[in-house]
Amino acid sequence: METTELDPILSQTLNAAKRAGLTLVIGNKNYSSWSMRPWLALTAFNIPFTEVKIALDQPDTQSRIADYSAAGRVPVLLAGEMTIWDSLAICEYVAEQFHDKHLWPQDVAARALARSVVAEMHSGFEALRTAMPMNIRARFHGKGRTPQAQADIGRICEIWEECLARFGHHQFLFGDFSIADAFYAPVVMRFRTYGVALAPALQAYCDRVLNHPAVARWVAEAEVEKETIPREDERYRD
Amino acid sequence: METTELDPILSQTLNAAKRAGLTLVIGNKNYSSWSMRPWLALTAFNIPFTEVKIALDQPDTQSRIADYSAAGRVPVLLAGEMTIWDSLAICEYVAEQFHDKHLWPQDVAARALARSVVAEMHSGFEALRTAMPMNIRARFHGKGRTPQAQADIGRICEIWEECLARFGHHQFLFGDFSIADAFYAPVVMRFRTYGVALAPALQAYCDRVLNHPAVARWVAEAEVEKETIPREDERYRD
Repeated sequence: METTELDPILSQTLNAAKRAGLTLVIGNKNYSSWSMRPWLALTAFNIPFTEVKIALDQPDTQSRIADYSAAGRVPVLLAGEMTIWDSLAICEYVAEQFHDKHLWPQDVAARALARSVVAEMHSGFEALRTAMPMNIRARFHGKGRTPQAQADIGRICEIWEECLARFGHHQFLFGDFSIADAFYAPVVMRFRTYGVALAPALQAYCDRVLNHPAVARWVAEAEVEKETIPREDERYRD
Repeated sequence: METTELDPILSQTLNAAKRAGLTLVIGNKNYSSWSMRPWLALTAFNIPFTEVKIALDQPDTQSRIADYSAAGRVPVLLAGEMTIWDSLAICEYVAEQFHDKHLWPQDVAARALARSVVAEMHSGFEALRTAMPMNIRARFHGKGRTPQAQADIGRICEIWEECLARFGHHQFLFGDFSIADAFYAPVVMRFRTYGVALAPALQAYCDRVLNHPAVARWVAEAEVEKETIPREDERYRD
């Protein structure tokens, strides 16, 4: 990263934040489902961090991300001299560094199941991502129902039912809010945007996620963003 | 899982193995890159486990996998009463349960980088997977070079160079063999099958991976498997 290419004041701010602690580089709150996860984890557990937002799909997006990460994607966490990328690696790092906050469930079996469903989300559900991209501000009720996306929705409902029944106690997936809820929160946003009908117990879970203070803040900030990604915005517009 | 549908002797064996410790359910060693990762991690660190292999793409494959996991994919780890799926969740579980074996690098910065590059592999490199599926026995030199696959190869080389330079000490990605090497071992196999030319330092890394006892054993067992997946085998046959 050539800091001389950055605005000097921005550069100073970033360097000060890096010395002080954590900086999370994210994309648009309306669209960036991958950014939402670690942001929610940090915010829900009251871990202080500096936020740097890079608007996606702009002419300078790739060069701005490249200032932070060779992987070329958001989110990126700067932690002192370390650059940590990918939503899951960031969450694992934070869970480890702030061990007493219990970002993962404390019970071994619950934690193993939480990591399983998080890893399944991390590497899968491609059909749902493609047919129903996250777009928090929009309402595209009934759109995006490809057979593969329907199968993904069915599998997600199955996962939620299992977690809530075994460990959720009618609260979050594993009782208290955890990394697992942070990973599935973008799905909750998709279900809202595309009007996916759910069984009452699962809709109640979605409502609890939407009412969580960290989620509510992310959504409120997404609502007022000015930048749009035309291809995502227009795909389902009538 | 309806154990009554299983062969009674197999069922008894599995139940005994479950009581005793870990059972890893995998696909064909020749093809299943996702299975290779946790198998290597367990084997390289001398963690005892019972192996159950399910031949992929056979008429009974899905029903056999469904006996173990609702996610419908291999690998699956059975640990006592727990069912843990997905290669990364399995590795995290094992690293945590066998903490003294150091499946992740011990240094915080090395571990953060290891988790970053593992997560990048876990959720990405779709073009490489599609154009160059793992097929350990085959030699398809020069095939599969789509522009996107070439870009993936370039990024993987960049990752290996960074890890080896910062933490590798001319050995594995982070010095001693770790989960990171287990995650990139299937790429080493692809590079061999498709004849990808590498810089000498990276080829030397690949050779060290191929000579690691756990990798050598997996490869030897892949070589003698009888089952084939026709679509993968035939794609690049002359």
